[in-house]
Amino acid sequence: MNNTPSLSQSLQFYQARSNQQLSLWIDAQPFAGLPLIKAMEHGTLLGGKRARPFLTYVTGEMLGADIADLDTPAAAIECIHAYSLIHDDLPAMDDDNLRRGQPTCHIAFDEATAILAGDALQTLAFDILASGPLSTNGDTNRVAMISELAKASGAQGMCMGQALDLDAEGKHVGIEQLETIHRHKTGALIRCAVRLGALAAGEKGVAVLPQLNAYADAIGLAFQVQDDILDVISDTETLGKPQGSDIELEKSTYPALLGLDGAKAKAQQLYQQALHALSAIPYNTEQLEVFARYVIERNN
Amino acid sequence: MNNTPSLSQSLQFYQARSNQQLSLWIDAQPFAGLPLIKAMEHGTLLGGKRARPFLTYVTGEMLGADIADLDTPAAAIECIHAYSLIHDDLPAMDDDNLRRGQPTCHIAFDEATAILAGDALQTLAFDILASGPLSTNGDTNRVAMISELAKASGAQGMCMGQALDLDAEGKHVGIEQLETIHRHKTGALIRCAVRLGALAAGEKGVAVLPQLNAYADAIGLAFQVQDDILDVISDTETLGKPQGSDIELEKSTYPALLGLDGAKAKAQQLYQQALHALSAIPYNTEQLEVFARYVIERNN
Repeated sequence: MNNTPSLSQSLQFYQARSNQQLSLWIDAQPFAGLPLIKAMEHGTLLGGKRARPFLTYVTGEMLGADIADLDTPAAAIECIHAYSLIHDDLPAMDDDNLRRGQPTCHIAFDEATAILAGDALQTLAFDILASGPLSTNGDTNRVAMISELAKASGAQGMCMGQALDLDAEGKHVGIEQLETIHRHKTGALIRCAVRLGALAAGEKGVAVLPQLNAYADAIGLAFQVQDDILDVISDTETLGKPQGSDIELEKSTYPALLGLDGAKAKAQQLYQQALHALSAIPYNTEQLEVFARYVIERNN
Repeated sequence: MNNTPSLSQSLQFYQARSNQQLSLWIDAQPFAGLPLIKAMEHGTLLGGKRARPFLTYVTGEMLGADIADLDTPAAAIECIHAYSLIHDDLPAMDDDNLRRGQPTCHIAFDEATAILAGDALQTLAFDILASGPLSTNGDTNRVAMISELAKASGAQGMCMGQALDLDAEGKHVGIEQLETIHRHKTGALIRCAVRLGALAAGEKGVAVLPQLNAYADAIGLAFQVQDDILDVISDTETLGKPQGSDIELEKSTYPALLGLDGAKAKAQQLYQQALHALSAIPYNTEQLEVFARYVIERNN
């Protein structure tokens, strides 16, 4: 039982694996050394928890997939996440200068390069998923995985979430609308990370997709609730981005709508939902459990 | 022989088909009426020659595919093209206010919406190619088609072309470097349009890919040479975008490097190369021939 690695060991392990894979893909691009490629590296390789690759890896391994069979979807989903951060930080969007304690892409390079690096990272995600290695089991789900990633990222998912979020700035937004925003903006990709891990594992994975959806939806929302809490209670150095930026942008947040204690209770409730969903999965769900606790206990 | 439709009839026919297909895909998105979806419509449905869908349709039909089996790749490639125009027009890139005689996306909406609409149209391209209908023959090439579209659009293709083009502004660029820029910026996607048509037709298409590559590379470059010529000799009203904008941005162009007569000779030479490539294809290549002539004779 205690041979299980701690979550921080486990996160570090998959983070290193994920970084190595992303490096391989970016190094394989022609025109190395040009600003576009350097900006793509900057956006993917300078820090980041790699929460989405982690979810893809541990979900797939739980279902019997080899780690090497999960490299492809894990790298693809992180490219989508990295592109979204680059574009969200742009002056016309959230106008952030600092991300993960580093200058954001348009500060380190320029706006045009940041826009293109985001664009090319999105494309790379689909290139990876279309051409990267998968197991025979996983390969039968390759087209389904590409379709899922597209639906989670675009106007039905993440992009719409960012559009709804920008539209809500400075407006009063109720709790239901806030949930709609976050289920699109961050939830869709977190759910997709879990689902891609399952699909890469083949039939065994497909069989537990409903339970995994319930788990992922709960932790996806909990992730955002905790982000909102940290924006209130943490400091800029720990966060690696400006503390209090939600308040400055007059964003609707869980603490603003529910109070700080209400938001903490909401996070706890979502955590319990996540555990309940896992209890219906007949495999060793320990890594997913520990990750759910991390989501609501993390301080950055 | 003279039952063949004229090129303008043919372009109009496929343009209408392509617009109808794009409408269906965009109408199927949730959140209709929100600015993000309207901006996606604006970017795809207000005019445009639909040269890329045309190439996909006529290549596929030449090889025996039904028109309905070509709707999926034709719509996908046009979404990529539309996204690239929205992002290229942004203030941080080419800063254009007018496109196809209409306000560009960030003028009609705002910059954040334009960035997101471009992002979501790129995603939609891959969604369409992963989930849209294909013939049984075409379906065997579905993953290959997704991979080709990604390679043509990203850091190995179009995005890199735009990055190289921005980098070249205000610098002296020789003819070889200019060709590298255009083979990436516009050539890669034109080649991809032809190849997707062939792949959607199955094995017959795969067999003539080398000849189609040679054709597409020639017309792709000719397209750009003619664009450069038109920027010198045409007027803003005919172009639907500001005449002389290349000179204003100090862009390297074929007329600047070769003189106007030299650029026209270059276009002619590429046209002959395109015809030569087609002569090795044992099908009725008339539509592709007529299109090649249109590329170097068009006035907008």
